[in-house]
Amino acid sequence: MATVALIEYAQASPAVQAVYDDIMTTRNLPDVNNFWKALANQPDLLKRTWETIKEVMRPGALDPLTKELLYVAVSIVNNCEYCIHSHTAAATAKGMTAEQYAELLAVVAMASQTNALATGLQVPVDGRFRVGK
Amino acid sequence: MATVALIEYAQASPAVQAVYDDIMTTRNLPDVNNFWKALANQPDLLKRTWETIKEVMRPGALDPLTKELLYVAVSIVNNCEYCIHSHTAAATAKGMTAEQYAELLAVVAMASQTNALATGLQVPVDGRFRVGK
Amino acid sequence: MATVALIEYAQASPAVQAVYDDIMTTRNLPDVNNFWKALANQPDLLKRTWETIKEVMRPGALDPLTKELLYVAVSIVNNCEYCIHSHTAAATAKGMTAEQYAELLAVVAMASQTNALATGLQVPVDGRFRVGK
Amino acid sequence: MATVALIEYAQASPAVQAVYDDIMTTRNLPDVNNFWKALANQPDLLKRTWETIKEVMRPGALDPLTKELLYVAVSIVNNCEYCIHSHTAAATAKGMTAEQYAELLAVVAMASQTNALATGLQVPVDGRFRVGK
Amino acid sequence: MATVALIEYAQASPAVQAVYDDIMTTRNLPDVNNFWKALANQPDLLKRTWETIKEVMRPGALDPLTKELLYVAVSIVNNCEYCIHSHTAAATAKGMTAEQYAELLAVVAMASQTNALATGLQVPVDGRFRVGK
Amino acid sequence: MATVALIEYAQASPAVQAVYDDIMTTRNLPDVNNFWKALANQPDLLKRTWETIKEVMRPGALDPLTKELLYVAVSIVNNCEYCIHSHTAAATAKGMTAEQYAELLAVVAMASQTNALATGLQVPVDGRFRVGK
Repeated sequence: MATVALIEYAQASPAVQAVYDDIMTTRNLPDVNNFWKALANQPDLLKRTWETIKEVMRPGALDPLTKELLYVAVSIVNNCEYCIHSHTAAATAKGMTAEQYAELLAVVAMASQTNALATGLQVPVDGRFRVGK
Repeated sequence: MATVALIEYAQASPAVQAVYDDIMTTRNLPDVNNFWKALANQPDLLKRTWETIKEVMRPGALDPLTKELLYVAVSIVNNCEYCIHSHTAAATAKGMTAEQYAELLAVVAMASQTNALATGLQVPVDGRFRVGK
Repeated sequence: MATVALIEYAQASPAVQAVYDDIMTTRNLPDVNNFWKALANQPDLLKRTWETIKEVMRPGALDPLTKELLYVAVSIVNNCEYCIHSHTAAATAKGMTAEQYAELLAVVAMASQTNALATGLQVPVDGRFRVGK
Repeated sequence: MATVALIEYAQASPAVQAVYDDIMTTRNLPDVNNFWKALANQPDLLKRTWETIKEVMRPGALDPLTKELLYVAVSIVNNCEYCIHSHTAAATAKGMTAEQYAELLAVVAMASQTNALATGLQVPVDGRFRVGK
Repeated sequence: MATVALIEYAQASPAVQAVYDDIMTTRNLPDVNNFWKALANQPDLLKRTWETIKEVMRPGALDPLTKELLYVAVSIVNNCEYCIHSHTAAATAKGMTAEQYAELLAVVAMASQTNALATGLQVPVDGRFRVGK
Repeated sequence: MATVALIEYAQASPAVQAVYDDIMTTRNLPDVNNFWKALANQPDLLKRTWETIKEVMRPGALDPLTKELLYVAVSIVNNCEYCIHSHTAAATAKGMTAEQYAELLAVVAMASQTNALATGLQVPVDGRFRVGK
């Protein structure tokens, strides 16, 4: 259950409907996800979040699938149930294969393990990694 | 400072030296990083960790750079200072450009933001994302 | 489901009932929340936790609503489903408006984003922030 | 040390200088913090982050000090060293007293404790907290 | 719901069945847990994870119950619902008493509290704790 | 650097000195750690934290070393640099051997890995783990 009511299209204000329309058009979907319906209780936050994510996730120096894989990885480590489901589904829709998913999980698990070890041992950063001041 | 002494090659047991040799050969480096020198206090853990990471990070369904980008993302969210430095350096060595790094950071920041929103609002998972039982 | 049985008032020992009575009186509620019913399996921990939270959350240099907003923010970042629901409800009961809730979420999301960026970039602390040694 | 070089005003592109100018004017500071100098390697991300934080942190339904206290709380739980220092300093600049800081820390510590207990015991959410579907 | 289908024994490949057989024999169970049935979509990851956990959790310098208590503690802090349930059950099966469980929870809650305080205050490490360089 | 000044014994109020005296007596130390010197800026929080930790860490159903190992594990996952150093030192002082430390790290690393996998795959909890309602 959400901490707020989910706002369906028919109930939404024109400003919220405009964001919903852009989401459905951009993503070629017949409805928006629950995430947006919950955010719609805060129209400013809804609009800003959608505009930013649209810009961040567009093709650039990284292709859309790689960005989605990164999104899944971050969502796993942040333990966001909703985001794990929605972005794993999005990655699959963008072409992630079962083999790629298996390797993604293996890297996330490996990194979580060595992160714990390096933190537990408080390993000092090697001088050769230094870039900035 | 580490919670343990760092074990240099000359001080290491033959079993540890064998792992160090394999690391230096596989990665074409003249010395191993501090991470391995700290882990060397636990030779079994050193060997197992190295062998697993070597297998996980080899080219597969995901290319080595994509794996390294995922490693950086996980290390940021887990807030592992050592790992952020070592894997950002490794990603750069594998060809990550400044533009790719900027987009990686933008995705990690975006995901952290929507993860917080979805968790704060406790958004229920959309039925259409369901795959397993 | 909990990892332990929830202890209802009628089943509770006198020591646990005394804590339940204090919670219901202090908060003017007809029953205690599931959190306390689960903690009641550990009467010492129940008593200590209740006494501390009663002291921490009383009006002081920060008013009760501000404390509750902070509690919600921490619970979101720690990703505690139970606590997000119970403290969002508590904040609402203490007068949090929909506009305040929207801004709370916006700050938590913004901070999560810049936390990720500062950590990812390993930005060195500016000298002018230094207070202690 | 940062993973990137910090960009000083004199070295910056006109687009970055424009953001720096706005930060210095808005906050009435003679220079920008290291956070912005690191972000300036990614001009788009710099601009977007600054514009969003400026909007999120302006006075609204929550006053600026309350927002800053929330920022500090989130930064502690996310364990962002840079952000803890910069936002604790910002809260102090906005009038946070030693007593308020002490109570902020007490709430963050208390919430972290009950978050761990509720998560460890997997306490089911009380029906009376339910708002959304 | 899982992001993947759970693979039952009858549907599994011979390689996966061999791992399932070893798990059931080692742990004297009539079936494997859902964790393994989900991992079985990635046979290499399944095999490697099982072999490592079998080695890590065997009696050594720490007895099996102490290792299981540590596993529960880590799972609580990482907020892994599945792992909290499975390892709390495993600890109980290995002899954890209600009193030990209560003390485990108290230590995890206490540590979470002081972790937040030390991080919030950015307490410098005492010189006498230094071991490594 | 801390966000507050560290309060030495000679500068402390009688109430703070009384807590310092109890810490030094209980732990047989000639001085208190920096953690207490930072907390002393909040005398109530100092007193409450010390009294609770003294109670939580005393011998009970779990022996003091096991409690300390749990404290180290939690501190690693919460990534508290100060706490990792102070509690690893405390565990060593209570008799933790190098072999036990190696196994502690191996369990923390293993749990972090399977936590990530179970969360990433969103594995449903097996019915047989259910205890509470």
